[in-house]
Amino acid sequence: MNLKEFNNLPLQDATTELEKCCVSKCWAQHMLENMPFASADELVQKTADIWYQQCRELDWQAAFEGHPKIGDITSLKEKFSNTKNWATNEQSNITEADDAVLKALAKANDDYLNKFGYIFIVSASGKSAKEMLSIINARIKNNKEDELHVAMGEQHKITVIRLVKLIDDVSTADLRSHITTHVLDTTTGIPGKGLQISLNELTDSVWKPITAGITNNDGRIVDLLPPGKNLKAGSYQLLFNTANYYKEQQQEGFYPEVSIQFIVTNHDHYHVPLLLNPYGYTTYRGS
Amino acid sequence: MNLKEFNNLPLQDATTELEKCCVSKCWAQHMLENMPFASADELVQKTADIWYQQCRELDWQAAFEGHPKIGDITSLKEKFSNTKNWATNEQSNITEADDAVLKALAKANDDYLNKFGYIFIVSASGKSAKEMLSIINARIKNNKEDELHVAMGEQHKITVIRLVKLIDDVSTADLRSHITTHVLDTTTGIPGKGLQISLNELTDSVWKPITAGITNNDGRIVDLLPPGKNLKAGSYQLLFNTANYYKEQQQEGFYPEVSIQFIVTNHDHYHVPLLLNPYGYTTYRGS
Amino acid sequence: MNLKEFNNLPLQDATTELEKCCVSKCWAQHMLENMPFASADELVQKTADIWYQQCRELDWQAAFEGHPKIGDITSLKEKFSNTKNWATNEQSNITEADDAVLKALAKANDDYLNKFGYIFIVSASGKSAKEMLSIINARIKNNKEDELHVAMGEQHKITVIRLVKLIDDVSTADLRSHITTHVLDTTTGIPGKGLQISLNELTDSVWKPITAGITNNDGRIVDLLPPGKNLKAGSYQLLFNTANYYKEQQQEGFYPEVSIQFIVTNHDHYHVPLLLNPYGYTTYRGS
Amino acid sequence: MNLKEFNNLPLQDATTELEKCCVSKCWAQHMLENMPFASADELVQKTADIWYQQCRELDWQAAFEGHPKIGDITSLKEKFSNTKNWATNEQSNITEADDAVLKALAKANDDYLNKFGYIFIVSASGKSAKEMLSIINARIKNNKEDELHVAMGEQHKITVIRLVKLIDDVSTADLRSHITTHVLDTTTGIPGKGLQISLNELTDSVWKPITAGITNNDGRIVDLLPPGKNLKAGSYQLLFNTANYYKEQQQEGFYPEVSIQFIVTNHDHYHVPLLLNPYGYTTYRGS
Repeated sequence: MNLKEFNNLPLQDATTELEKCCVSKCWAQHMLENMPFASADELVQKTADIWYQQCRELDWQAAFEGHPKIGDITSLKEKFSNTKNWATNEQSNITEADDAVLKALAKANDDYLNKFGYIFIVSASGKSAKEMLSIINARIKNNKEDELHVAMGEQHKITVIRLVKLIDDVSTADLRSHITTHVLDTTTGIPGKGLQISLNELTDSVWKPITAGITNNDGRIVDLLPPGKNLKAGSYQLLFNTANYYKEQQQEGFYPEVSIQFIVTNHDHYHVPLLLNPYGYTTYRGS
Repeated sequence: MNLKEFNNLPLQDATTELEKCCVSKCWAQHMLENMPFASADELVQKTADIWYQQCRELDWQAAFEGHPKIGDITSLKEKFSNTKNWATNEQSNITEADDAVLKALAKANDDYLNKFGYIFIVSASGKSAKEMLSIINARIKNNKEDELHVAMGEQHKITVIRLVKLIDDVSTADLRSHITTHVLDTTTGIPGKGLQISLNELTDSVWKPITAGITNNDGRIVDLLPPGKNLKAGSYQLLFNTANYYKEQQQEGFYPEVSIQFIVTNHDHYHVPLLLNPYGYTTYRGS
Repeated sequence: MNLKEFNNLPLQDATTELEKCCVSKCWAQHMLENMPFASADELVQKTADIWYQQCRELDWQAAFEGHPKIGDITSLKEKFSNTKNWATNEQSNITEADDAVLKALAKANDDYLNKFGYIFIVSASGKSAKEMLSIINARIKNNKEDELHVAMGEQHKITVIRLVKLIDDVSTADLRSHITTHVLDTTTGIPGKGLQISLNELTDSVWKPITAGITNNDGRIVDLLPPGKNLKAGSYQLLFNTANYYKEQQQEGFYPEVSIQFIVTNHDHYHVPLLLNPYGYTTYRGS
Repeated sequence: MNLKEFNNLPLQDATTELEKCCVSKCWAQHMLENMPFASADELVQKTADIWYQQCRELDWQAAFEGHPKIGDITSLKEKFSNTKNWATNEQSNITEADDAVLKALAKANDDYLNKFGYIFIVSASGKSAKEMLSIINARIKNNKEDELHVAMGEQHKITVIRLVKLIDDVSTADLRSHITTHVLDTTTGIPGKGLQISLNELTDSVWKPITAGITNNDGRIVDLLPPGKNLKAGSYQLLFNTANYYKEQQQEGFYPEVSIQFIVTNHDHYHVPLLLNPYGYTTYRGS
């Protein structure tokens, strides 16, 4: 289906397709009201605007209910037949992980549910179970208010991925994350892989988490922010969990964490890399 | 007077001399009990041990009462005749500052007294009024508990300076601050001068301030920590107020602050420099 | 024309098309002998292999004769009718440059011809007259033997560009330069533009030039090495003309040049960036 | 003997004392002509001025003849009775080195003598045999003209050390080397020890060696340049032999050497440090 075909769908069919992307009725309703979309860019932009500005806490939580519990293959099969195929793909990397990690992830999922009252939502594309475990362990430390915002951001990433799959001529290839980072380990000469990173925002003199992720084999987090989502002007912080990174390598490091605070003033792309070694590091505004 | 002569002073005279250095009776009493001191190093070490480990909140506040209000020349002349000459010297740089800074400093002193209930204590040696203003503006943001620890650390620096003046063969020349830093501005090629820096300690997952200072013309803070005072093993943070630094230069910078977290494991000297430019910085463990 | 059609051309037509790309008979002859090409990659690889390994000095110089003198619009129009359209496009940026630069470039072209006996060959795509002037000024300092190798490398870049234009399904989009660099000016926070860079190779303990270029608006030189050309294992040097860079900005710098020597061991991609400020710089192996 | 007593020595005695410091008649004669020296600083300055500006190749080589061959204990004992004690001390670190190094050093001394026609002169204070071996291996690659200048600079360092020993109130404690460096290995967090460094000068577009040394345990070379010797304005190069550094550690590195070119404009102190790791490095103008 292309955008034109999508725009011409009967109301009932359009509703069904949208709810395959995100079960929030608030979001789907506002999307329907905005149809037809003049372009793929407009569709992606509206998706973000509605989700961040017109939906509220209850809408976000409603959307969370539409997901199978990550890693729980059984519930995945039974419960959500209409999104089954997609969800299976998105979580397909889990099956390759070893049992210990899966058990730890299942336990963390339970703990998360107990603490926050909803299941752990994460844009799982391309992530291994170990990476997801690292992310959930970071996010479970958040307070309820903060985590809700992190989780709804992940929901949005998932929604956009599904829209891209649904409509052939919608693409996010040109929409880089507003903020990107890149870790180079200058002791080994290769990218810093598996480093847990949080992105935080200064709100009322307190750093509030926006999202958390793990660097891939190229030392990057491709989807740190959802495509099309621009941060408002302000102070932001990238927090790198270097303690874990060096612990995994059984190496000593001088820095328990590296935190980089920087100022965002507009919608330009912000690239904030880290050149890391055990007793020194460099950061700069990249391009 | 040398150490031998000091050790041999009659009790009454020894008490008088010690109270010229610090009016806390707790500290003076424990010092007297430890006399004679076998060496200058032992005297400096005991000074720190007693102050940090045997004195308590009320003792620290009692010591604060022994100081003239910084910048208040009138009260200085009237109130504390026995330490007058020293205190005048220690504050002599103030007189060269311009009126606006002095008025702002006087106002800040009042605000500080109102908030914390005691006067602003700072080891003023070599500091201009502008530098002291910068320090008080940073410290006034602390909560009561934190600031008390910062103030007592400053009291300790003052006590040691006075002991060095009092006893000819006591010197702290070989006692570097346990942690030092050095700011190089690699855009100008000269040291980063007038940069406000805080040193914080991780306590129960919260960064607590230990001390605050301003870099001198060589980009350093010579007395960041009191001579002879070693930090316990743990995580520490140097926080550089780069927003103010670039604002004073009417230049734009990418970093509202630079924070460097690092691990202290022993009594070795820790040198944590910062190579700063508006859109990039480097830190490393120096020597 | 696609590759299949190209492979099926009658001998005479194939010869004509190849000579539009490079007039060297040695190169064209060997290419014909290697037809048909199984894939676009094979065609690009053979193009390099033949040029670098089977052609010799006289062949390279013969190829140079096939070009209009850069910037000499008149000779361009008269002399080489079959490559006219392409050459015009490749040199189209010159027309926008101001007269002074054009005159200096014409003068440099003459000087170059006088010194080396053949016209100045440069892959001009995307380069302004000012950038070409900067490149010719750097290359004119080379000795005859060295410059011949630089010029033939440029000829090869041009040949490949023309092959890509000629055959629709030949692309070099996936063939990054074996060595790339990227200059970030961390004083301004933007890429270092217009910086003249040479790439040199250690041969018998002497640094021999391989190529020279100018960074674009993104601080990069996209075609530093020809696509598909891999350097042999050895020591290489990137030499950045920082004196000129800062002179153009009417700024003082500490470094008259920055030279980075590094070891190439295989066909992996080598990214060697420079984070530059007037009194400091950082380099690392990137990815 | 203090400076006043030295100034008042009878001509014959003054000559004898000066020749204990340096056997060049040219230098001693000019020194005598400049007596009395108004201050220690003047004496040190004249020592350099005469040596660098008034003495010539034959004078420098004459001075070399006054030294025992380094490491050749036998000739040391027999030949130069008047400087014996000092020379023994200056070379005392050799005795601790192991035999293999001593043999290699003796061999290198022979090779050096064969190539240059005079013995290897090096200011040996504080240097181990291994360090001297590293230095001679670097210097033996110089051409005759260049090495003569390096050797005469070493002679000058030795002369100054001896003057300081001879005259009680002459000191070079306040005379830092005009150029200093400092290597920090940010992979290990400790200074880069045993790194061979050359200092070169740009003369007629060629880098000419001025001196060579080895970093000590603190990553520094204290006597890179002779005390009181200021370089003239120009371009200089510090060349770090990182290939050997990483080879000794049986580690792979990306940089066969690190070379830093910088501009000296006046007599200010120039500190040019290197923060080194296997796949990245940083340099800056320090203070």
